[in-house]
Amino acid sequence: MNVVERLAEIAQLGATAAGIDRALFTPAEHAARERFAAWARADGFSVEQDQAGNVFVRLDGSEALPPVQCGSHLDTVKDGGAYDGAYGVIGGLEALRLIAARAERPRHPIEVVAWAGEEGSRFPVGTLGSSVYAGITPYEQAAALVADDGETFADAFAGPAGKLTDVPVRDAYPAPAAYVELHIEQGPVMERSGARLGVVTAIAGQRRLGARISGTAGHAGTIPMAMRSDALAAAADLVLAVEGAGRANPDSVATVGRLVVEPNQTNIVPGSVSLRIDVRSVEDARIDAMEHAIVEAAERIGAERRVRIALQVLESRRAAPMSPTLRAVLTAVCGALDPNAIALPSGAGHDAMCIAQIAPAAMIFVPSIRGESHVGTERTAPADLELGVEALAAALLAVDRDPALTLIV
Amino acid sequence: MNVVERLAEIAQLGATAAGIDRALFTPAEHAARERFAAWARADGFSVEQDQAGNVFVRLDGSEALPPVQCGSHLDTVKDGGAYDGAYGVIGGLEALRLIAARAERPRHPIEVVAWAGEEGSRFPVGTLGSSVYAGITPYEQAAALVADDGETFADAFAGPAGKLTDVPVRDAYPAPAAYVELHIEQGPVMERSGARLGVVTAIAGQRRLGARISGTAGHAGTIPMAMRSDALAAAADLVLAVEGAGRANPDSVATVGRLVVEPNQTNIVPGSVSLRIDVRSVEDARIDAMEHAIVEAAERIGAERRVRIALQVLESRRAAPMSPTLRAVLTAVCGALDPNAIALPSGAGHDAMCIAQIAPAAMIFVPSIRGESHVGTERTAPADLELGVEALAAALLAVDRDPALTLIV
Repeated sequence: MNVVERLAEIAQLGATAAGIDRALFTPAEHAARERFAAWARADGFSVEQDQAGNVFVRLDGSEALPPVQCGSHLDTVKDGGAYDGAYGVIGGLEALRLIAARAERPRHPIEVVAWAGEEGSRFPVGTLGSSVYAGITPYEQAAALVADDGETFADAFAGPAGKLTDVPVRDAYPAPAAYVELHIEQGPVMERSGARLGVVTAIAGQRRLGARISGTAGHAGTIPMAMRSDALAAAADLVLAVEGAGRANPDSVATVGRLVVEPNQTNIVPGSVSLRIDVRSVEDARIDAMEHAIVEAAERIGAERRVRIALQVLESRRAAPMSPTLRAVLTAVCGALDPNAIALPSGAGHDAMCIAQIAPAAMIFVPSIRGESHVGTERTAPADLELGVEALAAALLAVDRDPALTLIV
Repeated sequence: MNVVERLAEIAQLGATAAGIDRALFTPAEHAARERFAAWARADGFSVEQDQAGNVFVRLDGSEALPPVQCGSHLDTVKDGGAYDGAYGVIGGLEALRLIAARAERPRHPIEVVAWAGEEGSRFPVGTLGSSVYAGITPYEQAAALVADDGETFADAFAGPAGKLTDVPVRDAYPAPAAYVELHIEQGPVMERSGARLGVVTAIAGQRRLGARISGTAGHAGTIPMAMRSDALAAAADLVLAVEGAGRANPDSVATVGRLVVEPNQTNIVPGSVSLRIDVRSVEDARIDAMEHAIVEAAERIGAERRVRIALQVLESRRAAPMSPTLRAVLTAVCGALDPNAIALPSGAGHDAMCIAQIAPAAMIFVPSIRGESHVGTERTAPADLELGVEALAAALLAVDRDPALTLIV
């Protein structure tokens, strides 16, 4: 089976009417890890797992060196697609097969990792397995996390949909020599530019703000326009200010995705509005600048419209620039395979941003048809899936041979 | 008991934690009609009802003339207040007592009417009783209406919470010589201007539009700002255009009270937004102008933002100017009792707009504290409630004596 066929088979696990549900430590997600391990063993590779639920498929190297790793995740969002995550894992296994088929063994061990719980779709934290591996989240903290359904991470790992049977449990979390993650773009940029391969410049940092706008509810017929404190009209100003902040900064986005009106009745001037603001950029300074612009806009709108606007930072994540040395390797490899290859930022978070804390890390993207992702209709052309695997294999071999790697910090 | 005490007693019927629930033909609303009828009989007046559920309390006149009517309604919105409607009925009864206490009998019969189902809070149509009385809604059509709970109007009227026992059923719907409705303002205009009495110039016409904005949903991290078709950002433009249309027209309001975002998740660019637009004005031409401005704005926003905006007229009601002759009478009476009395439009609909189709009609307003209405905290100062009753009694007597009335069309 090639990568396209294997991905189609993995996509059956957790299939729903609308897409795929493979939350961490559920039977469907467990089955995907089992299938990955079974294929890897059949392909002649060794398989290990760790206490965080990460699964490691390994081709031994000829020298005593730390591993060169690739990988991604097998869990999905609710009603997610077939390629987000699974492509980097199953594509990584395919790349490993290509490398193992060569006469010459690699110097470094090469590992394909299925990182546990990247999506945060059952436990309330994303990139969980790679965070534990990178030492960002202490294992004890992860073990104590409680799922939506009340089960702890530790109990779920010990249960029937957790740990794989017959797979040894590794105790150490060695920093890899380098990490390369293969992933779908999840956006429209490559498709529109005609690129089949993309080299990620940085994974955007992200800040989420909550806003609560308190005006005065009233009868939509009897309160003259000049006497209103309309929370929704104020929210409209704020939505446009958020959009303006995103437009004013290059390689940045700012979005109001969620907005709830109260009391939300046709004949009542809205009394309050709650909304969520999501800003992302490859430069932390631009995230700060966008937040600053939004806070200033909220103050101005509040004063002009006689409403109270309370803003609160809910989440904050710093931007993760990819390793310049690894990017240079990937740029050479991808340019050789695709003359239209581009460099682009990743607006979405990935396990690579965690591993980047302990090792040189970089990413290869393939295009998403219509930019769709996190939906059942998420697609990438089969030829592009195969080209991405070729690029990953070539990149891993180039990294394995590159003497500069020992100099990378 | 005076009008304040009687209103307090009526407010107990259907009292909830948040306000008052007296939907048409429910036990609480039936009890309010019964109490009204019982008080009226104890006060020496005759009581009748009709097939539409309207209740008529009558003081006979000295000449064979059509009645001069006043009144309002005893039903409430869900969690409504103590005065919206009930004040015009109970205050009307109090005015009738003042008139009956005089040595001289009025020329016309004077009637206080409790119109059935003004709020449309159980059956799906408002000003139901007065619409039937005025011939706007044929009785058969009203009788066939189905309540939220599945019961027809005819069945509910025949049931235990419908028709009053021991009250004769009137068969005719005679046009009154004139109709004067006493009501709370339900807005902040009188309180802010220091007026205790207000004469309504016109009941605003109303048009309701539904808008459905279809953009393209996508990942809030991966879709660059320039490639978005964000339905919520387009909705923000439209909300501000609606507000602008309201501000641009005198004695007019335009409101987006209801707005729902899909999929409404923090990390997803909104794919579609549904919203409701409510425009009202005392001039039908201004309603047309506001609709026109909103339609133009929607076309411009749709083109600029690459979204589809579908607009649909859901409801339309023409403005109802009050009778100039009756307004002159009310202006004289109210000015004598309150030097700060003002003229103002009514943004809310009232039974008076139905009766205006068959007779000269006008309204007297008293102030609403903080402009609140349709909520449990709806209040009017007791002294203002009493002054409004005095004004109504004086107005009914002035109308009864006015020979110009026969000339009114």
